Amino acid sequence: MKVFIVFAHPEPKSLNGALLRTTVNELEAQGHEVQVSDLYAMKWKPQVDRDDFPYVKPDERFRVAYASGEATRTNTLTDDVKLEQEKFLWADFVILQFPMWWYTMPAILTGWVDRVYSLGFAYGIGEHSDDHWGDRYGEGKVLGKRAMLLVTVTSWKEHYSARGINGPIDDVLFPINHGILFYPGFEVLPAHIVYQADRLKESDFGKVKDELLQRLRTLSDTKPIAFRPQNGGDYEIPTLTLKPGLGDASAAGFSLHSRRNEDATQE
Amino acid sequence: MKVFIVFAHPEPKSLNGALLRTTVNELEAQGHEVQVSDLYAMKWKPQVDRDDFPYVKPDERFRVAYASGEATRTNTLTDDVKLEQEKFLWADFVILQFPMWWYTMPAILTGWVDRVYSLGFAYGIGEHSDDHWGDRYGEGKVLGKRAMLLVTVTSWKEHYSARGINGPIDDVLFPINHGILFYPGFEVLPAHIVYQADRLKESDFGKVKDELLQRLRTLSDTKPIAFRPQNGGDYEIPTLTLKPGLGDASAAGFSLHSRRNEDATQE
Repeated sequence: MKVFIVFAHPEPKSLNGALLRTTVNELEAQGHEVQVSDLYAMKWKPQVDRDDFPYVKPDERFRVAYASGEATRTNTLTDDVKLEQEKFLWADFVILQFPMWWYTMPAILTGWVDRVYSLGFAYGIGEHSDDHWGDRYGEGKVLGKRAMLLVTVTSWKEHYSARGINGPIDDVLFPINHGILFYPGFEVLPAHIVYQADRLKESDFGKVKDELLQRLRTLSDTKPIAFRPQNGGDYEIPTLTLKPGLGDASAAGFSLHSRRNEDATQE
Repeated sequence: MKVFIVFAHPEPKSLNGALLRTTVNELEAQGHEVQVSDLYAMKWKPQVDRDDFPYVKPDERFRVAYASGEATRTNTLTDDVKLEQEKFLWADFVILQFPMWWYTMPAILTGWVDRVYSLGFAYGIGEHSDDHWGDRYGEGKVLGKRAMLLVTVTSWKEHYSARGINGPIDDVLFPINHGILFYPGFEVLPAHIVYQADRLKESDFGKVKDELLQRLRTLSDTKPIAFRPQNGGDYEIPTLTLKPGLGDASAAGFSLHSRRNEDATQE
């Protein structure tokens, strides 16, 4: 398959650098084609601004989404964005790799999403009707393709457990897994996480590497997160609230938006 | 009081620009001092990289947290970061204002946090012992001060409701409210949200403005979110898991980390 890795760490000699090399070598050894966007090495521009849309006149009000949509429609996005969109569509499998900083992606990767996910490319597509609210959350340009996060965190695993102070890791990553990967249509595999990354000794790397290799050797058998497709019948339209009877009635929150076994028997 | 607003929108003629002017005018009319960091106007550098730490030699491995800690300790952070840290400490009340893009802050604001929240300033401070795991989550350099998010979103309010497809707005904002504002010690007021911001007509601005003014005129009466302090007795140390008996035993997720009435009676 064709694999596209978006990598967001400033230091090749880091743990993240080593994990990237392990991933590329293993996937190539399996016979896959791999492209990497090393955002720091590419000096990726993180912020969306007027320079992205030279056709917006200096005295004209800059409407970000509108400008993004016009540039997508007229094929006048900047070359760096176009190239990333090509790799994004080329791939069968996309990996976002980053160290978690302040409970989300580093700014350079946030800004990759802000700029590459243009209106008409990643959002604002498809029909709106009584049973379809645009092609998103399970539908979109990358329908049928898969994606996964590869993340290092400095906290202990317990701090991200069900009752851990940072919140459960699945919830912390939900805005990315669901809001960025599932949104344009990917099937999302569970993230691969390396905990206490800043405490890792050189001598411990073998174990971390083996766990990653094990993961990379079982990708095709790994079940995606069972996020509920927006237009699959689970949601009221246009309020996009989960229909009564689905999910745990007493629950609120992110976990409602994945199908569980009990839903399968209800349907 | 002294108010510091960090503003992340590229267009002054936007809804966000109008909300910023409303906020500044109202707070000054109330007699407060206001400083604004308009990140786009300042051409804020979003990405953490080697340029932030000129004392790291070109052939030396760049360890991000370590370099950040050394630069903080030796007062060699870059001038732009030092200035933001001064405003941050000067303020009694901090507002982060931004349009939500892809379920988090725009990259330029993510990068303000990544760079300004240096090791030894916003994290990695305080003692570690059997009943104290560093000064964080309710303790830190801004203890006793308050902060709030001012956010515009394009989705409907229902899409962010308890069973809405985007997840509840309190959960979507939890990594920022809890992980970025509560973390260094702020008391966090509930966010002020403007929904369907991209559909707002000029004629509707009066209502949006009035709601914001109402909010700004009642700040001192507004109760902060009852996040649980890490070292206040609610958590096991060092696993930092919520102690048995606290919160809803069947619940998992972000909501556990705010005190509810039932906890008050248990304590």
